[in-house]
Amino acid sequence: MSFSDNELLFDGNEKQIFATDDPERVIIRYKDVATAFGGIKRATITNKGILTNKISALMFGHLEKAGIRTHFIRTVDERSQLCHKVGLIPLEVIVRNYVAGSMAERLGLEEGMKPRNTIYELCYNSDEFGDPLINRHHAVALGLVSYGELDAMFETTQKVNAVLQDIFGRCGIRLVDLRIEFGRASDGSIILSDEISPDTCRLWDEQTLEKLDKDRFRYDDGNIIAAYMEVFNRLNNLN
Amino acid sequence: MSFSDNELLFDGNEKQIFATDDPERVIIRYKDVATAFGGIKRATITNKGILTNKISALMFGHLEKAGIRTHFIRTVDERSQLCHKVGLIPLEVIVRNYVAGSMAERLGLEEGMKPRNTIYELCYNSDEFGDPLINRHHAVALGLVSYGELDAMFETTQKVNAVLQDIFGRCGIRLVDLRIEFGRASDGSIILSDEISPDTCRLWDEQTLEKLDKDRFRYDDGNIIAAYMEVFNRLNNLN
Repeated sequence: MSFSDNELLFDGNEKQIFATDDPERVIIRYKDVATAFGGIKRATITNKGILTNKISALMFGHLEKAGIRTHFIRTVDERSQLCHKVGLIPLEVIVRNYVAGSMAERLGLEEGMKPRNTIYELCYNSDEFGDPLINRHHAVALGLVSYGELDAMFETTQKVNAVLQDIFGRCGIRLVDLRIEFGRASDGSIILSDEISPDTCRLWDEQTLEKLDKDRFRYDDGNIIAAYMEVFNRLNNLN
Repeated sequence: MSFSDNELLFDGNEKQIFATDDPERVIIRYKDVATAFGGIKRATITNKGILTNKISALMFGHLEKAGIRTHFIRTVDERSQLCHKVGLIPLEVIVRNYVAGSMAERLGLEEGMKPRNTIYELCYNSDEFGDPLINRHHAVALGLVSYGELDAMFETTQKVNAVLQDIFGRCGIRLVDLRIEFGRASDGSIILSDEISPDTCRLWDEQTLEKLDKDRFRYDDGNIIAAYMEVFNRLNNLN
């Protein structure tokens, strides 16, 4: 399948979306670009798009097998996948199994600590407002979702976290936290969208606690591609 | 009752707490001080403490009559009240019936707009971390409360909002938003504490939308005492 002449519907920081002959389906192409801190930090990282596409495809496959509806249909080429077309809901749902990143500083909790509960967060996906932390009531007041839709999204999020913890756990990888996004399909249903990769999950080696995710880019730890490759290889070798 | 020789247990920005002969009871004295923006703005406002004490006493009385347990026992003098001693939980519960203040800027919502839903918020009461917005899961992870306690606090908050909307409404005052705090009594139960006044509620005249609250201090609108006096007089003249 070639789509080089297809209409470019969206050209984002890290992904492009192309039309297909089927108005209900799009092709999502993962770029070799990394951005962080709301786009302030940006770099080209050769082959990153290939690895995030492959890892994301594997993870969406595992989630589909576990009965979770996602936008993923199948891989098209090494950096592209065919997906159901959705209207992305501008919310980031974050799950924190361990403390890391912005929350550690914000609340004075120690990085690496396992809190007594699983922490769920909502952020309003808005460049203009800097992706602020919000809560359920704000999301409804902003007209983005209903309370019932949020309940369903959090229920799915809980399942996603359980499936991913299991898969990564079997690879010796600790799922520290994850960020997922949802979209509305043409029938109005809300399905898991965006991507599942070391760009959207904090992944630490369970033994060494080495970071195998985008924090290597955020904090200039180097060897980003080697880390992403390590994650892909471990996932790909799971039986 | 004189308490000038009593032990000063706490000397806060806007209130002092004195011991009494009963270890379960304290005297809370409202100062003539206003602070805003996390203490960056601060001023002495003669007689403010008298008005906030009187308004708070009236409102706790209304809430008690409606079956809501509070720390308030009775007025001691014009700027002091006898209260049950509690361990304050470092959480602010905020209810927004209309959009105003920090939330308007944070999410790009128009000041004065009535959202489709009532918006509840939690802030972590911490000078060190700047009283950040948090959610239920953070409050539990911080070890401040259990999920069950939060449910009970939000249920009480909903009732408090209904009672206050009714009382202020009968005075021609719109309750735009309110901030309440809870404390743990010696028997472990969680009861409404702190104060209920134009320092903790945004109050607008229902007809003119004139601000009758601490925003007059925050934004240098002047006539703070006249506004607080207006609120007290209207409440005091309710039959």
